[in-house]
Amino acid sequence: MASATTSTGRSRMGRPPAHDNPRQRIVQQAAALFAQKGYEAASLGELAAAMGVSKAGIYHYFPTKQHIYDAIILGVLSGLVDQVGLAVQACQAAPDKLRAFMTEHARYFEANYNGFVVMLVGFSGISAPELKQEAMRLRDQHERMLRAIIDQGLDEGVFASGNPATVGRAVLSMLNWMVRWFKPGAGQSAEQVALQYHDLITRGLMAPVR
Amino acid sequence: MASATTSTGRSRMGRPPAHDNPRQRIVQQAAALFAQKGYEAASLGELAAAMGVSKAGIYHYFPTKQHIYDAIILGVLSGLVDQVGLAVQACQAAPDKLRAFMTEHARYFEANYNGFVVMLVGFSGISAPELKQEAMRLRDQHERMLRAIIDQGLDEGVFASGNPATVGRAVLSMLNWMVRWFKPGAGQSAEQVALQYHDLITRGLMAPVR
Repeated sequence: MASATTSTGRSRMGRPPAHDNPRQRIVQQAAALFAQKGYEAASLGELAAAMGVSKAGIYHYFPTKQHIYDAIILGVLSGLVDQVGLAVQACQAAPDKLRAFMTEHARYFEANYNGFVVMLVGFSGISAPELKQEAMRLRDQHERMLRAIIDQGLDEGVFASGNPATVGRAVLSMLNWMVRWFKPGAGQSAEQVALQYHDLITRGLMAPVR
Repeated sequence: MASATTSTGRSRMGRPPAHDNPRQRIVQQAAALFAQKGYEAASLGELAAAMGVSKAGIYHYFPTKQHIYDAIILGVLSGLVDQVGLAVQACQAAPDKLRAFMTEHARYFEANYNGFVVMLVGFSGISAPELKQEAMRLRDQHERMLRAIIDQGLDEGVFASGNPATVGRAVLSMLNWMVRWFKPGAGQSAEQVALQYHDLITRGLMAPVR
């Protein structure tokens, strides 16, 4: 699982994979455009030009720009939940699960950088109520997975006392804020950063009292 | 220092203080409007209407909307650096300084919630190069203050080994991400959240090996 993810993850950075699925191609290209220019400023005309197709070729699959936005967010979230879920399920002990959650989330973020930027930067939101509900369900599922790991570690006594909600928020804050400063392919990988964050919050900053 | 900050900080939440300074009043009201609607969607006409003045009354102080935006960002950043700097300087030991940095940052964030949302959410950026440089200087000053605290703790052996850049990033990620979920006046104060984050990263999650 982990090695397969890394090999696809690293090769996909920067450019969308050559999908046969035109819907998927539009979503990938739109994510790159929205991430670069911002959702408000980007137009379907630019998107069509960048893809070498007519605007009608895009309208055939998506009636509005908002529909493409919704597809980006739901695609990113469902992929995140699936991929991190598989990595976590491959572990038994809570500390291993926490490490897998953080590193797999970071790997997925780097491989899907544009979609994350569109999702986590800016004011736009999903419009259709049923899709918004689906997006919130996926986000909650991701957060619940993390809290369950913390709960397990507390129950088993491998984690010291702590509020699972606070720990979960701290972990996701560190991972999510990466959209604001991390640049794929420049310096450390997102996974390396996540490992350092993981060491910090598991071991703590204080030196043992001598 | 800390008590003076708390008393002004808590009372300022939600509504701008009654400033005699019209520039400052415009900045406060604009921050509230931009935070609510987004910078792009908000107009100077709405701002004037909300303040009960004419658009000319705003143009008298700020030639464009962008100038107000720049004033919001520089005001928030310089106040943050000053207030956190004073709180940190009042401490001697590195662990106390780290605690003061985190709690004072959180208090200032809650008291200046709208300005933080404008600064940290959305795509807009400061336009004039000299103001952008000033904003980056202030941001770097804040981050350097934090890294110096970590360095001091490592030098004195109270902090275990760790990369000061990573620790600094982790701390600021947790504090900055609060713009995305924290609501002033609902539930815990920002300072209480910051204290829990502080305990997590100083003590660490792992239980001592028995």
